[in-house]
Amino acid sequence: MLKPLPQSKGRLIKRRLPIQPAFHETDMMGVIHNSVYFLWFEQGRLQIMLEVLPVEEALQLGVFMPVVENICHYRKPARFGQPLLLYTSHHLQSRYEGRLVFSHYLIHEKQRVALAYGQTAMTLVDARTGRLVKTWPDDIWRRYQALK
Amino acid sequence: MLKPLPQSKGRLIKRRLPIQPAFHETDMMGVIHNSVYFLWFEQGRLQIMLEVLPVEEALQLGVFMPVVENICHYRKPARFGQPLLLYTSHHLQSRYEGRLVFSHYLIHEKQRVALAYGQTAMTLVDARTGRLVKTWPDDIWRRYQALK
Amino acid sequence: MLKPLPQSKGRLIKRRLPIQPAFHETDMMGVIHNSVYFLWFEQGRLQIMLEVLPVEEALQLGVFMPVVENICHYRKPARFGQPLLLYTSHHLQSRYEGRLVFSHYLIHEKQRVALAYGQTAMTLVDARTGRLVKTWPDDIWRRYQALK
Amino acid sequence: MLKPLPQSKGRLIKRRLPIQPAFHETDMMGVIHNSVYFLWFEQGRLQIMLEVLPVEEALQLGVFMPVVENICHYRKPARFGQPLLLYTSHHLQSRYEGRLVFSHYLIHEKQRVALAYGQTAMTLVDARTGRLVKTWPDDIWRRYQALK
Repeated sequence: MLKPLPQSKGRLIKRRLPIQPAFHETDMMGVIHNSVYFLWFEQGRLQIMLEVLPVEEALQLGVFMPVVENICHYRKPARFGQPLLLYTSHHLQSRYEGRLVFSHYLIHEKQRVALAYGQTAMTLVDARTGRLVKTWPDDIWRRYQALK
Repeated sequence: MLKPLPQSKGRLIKRRLPIQPAFHETDMMGVIHNSVYFLWFEQGRLQIMLEVLPVEEALQLGVFMPVVENICHYRKPARFGQPLLLYTSHHLQSRYEGRLVFSHYLIHEKQRVALAYGQTAMTLVDARTGRLVKTWPDDIWRRYQALK
Repeated sequence: MLKPLPQSKGRLIKRRLPIQPAFHETDMMGVIHNSVYFLWFEQGRLQIMLEVLPVEEALQLGVFMPVVENICHYRKPARFGQPLLLYTSHHLQSRYEGRLVFSHYLIHEKQRVALAYGQTAMTLVDARTGRLVKTWPDDIWRRYQALK
Repeated sequence: MLKPLPQSKGRLIKRRLPIQPAFHETDMMGVIHNSVYFLWFEQGRLQIMLEVLPVEEALQLGVFMPVVENICHYRKPARFGQPLLLYTSHHLQSRYEGRLVFSHYLIHEKQRVALAYGQTAMTLVDARTGRLVKTWPDDIWRRYQALK
């Protein structure tokens, strides 16, 4: 059984992202395919995390930030052409707890109806060994703490 | 908080599916992108559910089987060219509980290491009204009960 | 060498679309996967064609606008995070020639370097019979002629 | 009309690949999305090219094999669940002409009807400089000449 993701209770970081579902993201049932929501969640998570660790810097440092858990709960189907809003939030950790958890909340921009919500968790890994990084490089940790 | 998915305890239906990760499914970190696992889970779920309700018949009957919940827990990255095996299982419900839950377990075919596991849930919906179908059409229910 | 598709010489319709390559669109070579450019071209084409025929109306009328030809010539790899611009153009036909051709030109927004160019062609088809529609419904044709 | 890409006239290498269109590859028009054919063409091309240069070896050597041109001509829509066959062919070059061209031919396995055909071209590039590699490493060239 999958357990709900534990989250720290630190300062809350929030971002809002406009989403425009694309034609190719639909499936033959006429709605956005269930896998696409995770692509949107990723954009929400990166909205926050690219401020902390840009991809080029991650490649230079030899660290990855793989997703270790993805959850989505679907309430109403998203459709092509509907303007959506994705709200992503994250509780800042005062001490690194081994992984970062993000909450995602997708709404229809005009009807203000919740279409889906979910949680994703990522961690920090050494690219060569594949092992968890337990202590973050100073620079990155400072930028993480400075998130607003 | 997301709660673990409740499951009935009926007869266990199991399927095995060979998976060949494709080049385009990789991302710039050199591994299969996290969203792709849900495409594989879907193939596993459809391995079972297409025996119960083929897509053409669903379209004729005017019913959809949307995914209402998707969970994936990632343990080791899947890579391009690695032959994988996806095990999907489902506890048959003796009475329809409003949704069907599937468990997915992805392993490296040769190393027999678990790469990921997850759960997905789907339901039955009237295509026109978008409402849940509470009683299944007889034929489909019979085929569901006859699953092996 | 890419041979240009034959095009009518009518009034030129042009659109510009900002593109933000997404992380999941990269592949293990660190660049945007070659298939993704066609998703962008589609957004460019729809920028024009949704003014003529919204998807809901197409479904009501029972007509499809399938792509019949896709061409892309790649010059430099697009990368995650690079802001791009997609220019799409179309020569308006004074009489329907059986298909509509669109030209696509993708540039790096800041470096003003061409990354790729291509052409796509679509046609109008009766959804039930799968046959080409030779005469367009009046409304749609009027809107097509009114494109600016 | 699709003009064939110029090809050398060397010995013809052919491969056949069974394709099983997936549910998530459909779009709201009920057919396989036009971009997906290029994913299949890539599988056909890699069926040949991975015998010449496995991906791990390419990464070690620091060479890429980017697609420089993609063409697809669509004749009939592919649908979910239809078993398809993809035929890929390549004329072996006795001297490297700067790029390799592959022809792709997609048919419905049972009806033996052509659904689409296309051509793709790839080249060899130095991963660090992005420049074309004019002379192939000996090993790889030998394996290329040994293709059957």
